[in-house]
Amino acid sequence: MNPDDCPLCQLDESIVLFSRPKWRVIDARDPVFPAFTRVIWHAHIKEMSDLTRTERTDLMAVVFEVESIMRERLNPDKINVASLGNQVPHVHWHVIGRWRDDPTFPDSIWTPTKKPVSEETQAAARQKSIASRLPEYHQALINHLNRLYP
Amino acid sequence: MNPDDCPLCQLDESIVLFSRPKWRVIDARDPVFPAFTRVIWHAHIKEMSDLTRTERTDLMAVVFEVESIMRERLNPDKINVASLGNQVPHVHWHVIGRWRDDPTFPDSIWTPTKKPVSEETQAAARQKSIASRLPEYHQALINHLNRLYP
Repeated sequence: MNPDDCPLCQLDESIVLFSRPKWRVIDARDPVFPAFTRVIWHAHIKEMSDLTRTERTDLMAVVFEVESIMRERLNPDKINVASLGNQVPHVHWHVIGRWRDDPTFPDSIWTPTKKPVSEETQAAARQKSIASRLPEYHQALINHLNRLYP
Repeated sequence: MNPDDCPLCQLDESIVLFSRPKWRVIDARDPVFPAFTRVIWHAHIKEMSDLTRTERTDLMAVVFEVESIMRERLNPDKINVASLGNQVPHVHWHVIGRWRDDPTFPDSIWTPTKKPVSEETQAAARQKSIASRLPEYHQALINHLNRLYP
């Protein structure tokens, strides 16, 4: 994939929460999993092992800071962290808060699990409750990253 | 989940490729995705952010060494790295080599994609070809980790 065609190279700046010279943190704005934050390396690099060891460590440190604040502010039942890049081969990390009553738990968010209708109301209530706490989580995350990466 | 019920605490030692005091590397022996290696923290810890910053860095360094050797020896089209733990909340990392002609590419391995029958023969040939190269990859990985973690 050419950088000109790469959606992460041509990123909508309005979803950026925090940016530093080598990486940025965005709200994934996922319609189904609201607690979904991405950490994206700026350069159009395909794999983590294409970075230097120091760059990998620096990037993962940011990923786990996101995880920490997400846990602190949203208290999910589990955090999922993943870097796939099959569709967009540009290094990026998904940090996803999961709840037992979310639409696909305990499967991955990529597994098209269908929960019984009896659980749909609860899943919808959970989604709404998380969405309402997102602004507070995002602000706490920005404050935290500003302290660590002034 | 109690450690007594945790499959990663009660791990079959025969699949362990390499072990050090805090972590081990295993062959996932996945029937569909043969290039699948796991890095598992020994202690029954739920999230990466429950480890110290140094422990996280040390663990991720191992994950990316696995990635490096997998690329060098098996040359996949993409590497997927993920820590979900929804079913087994004990810190472990999946390192998965992916090929354009594997059964679910470019979707995640957790997405039950069904490729057209016309592509099934190619996917089966790919699977067989990777499987035949696994012993060489595993030996190279063990040698590499032995050098880095004597």
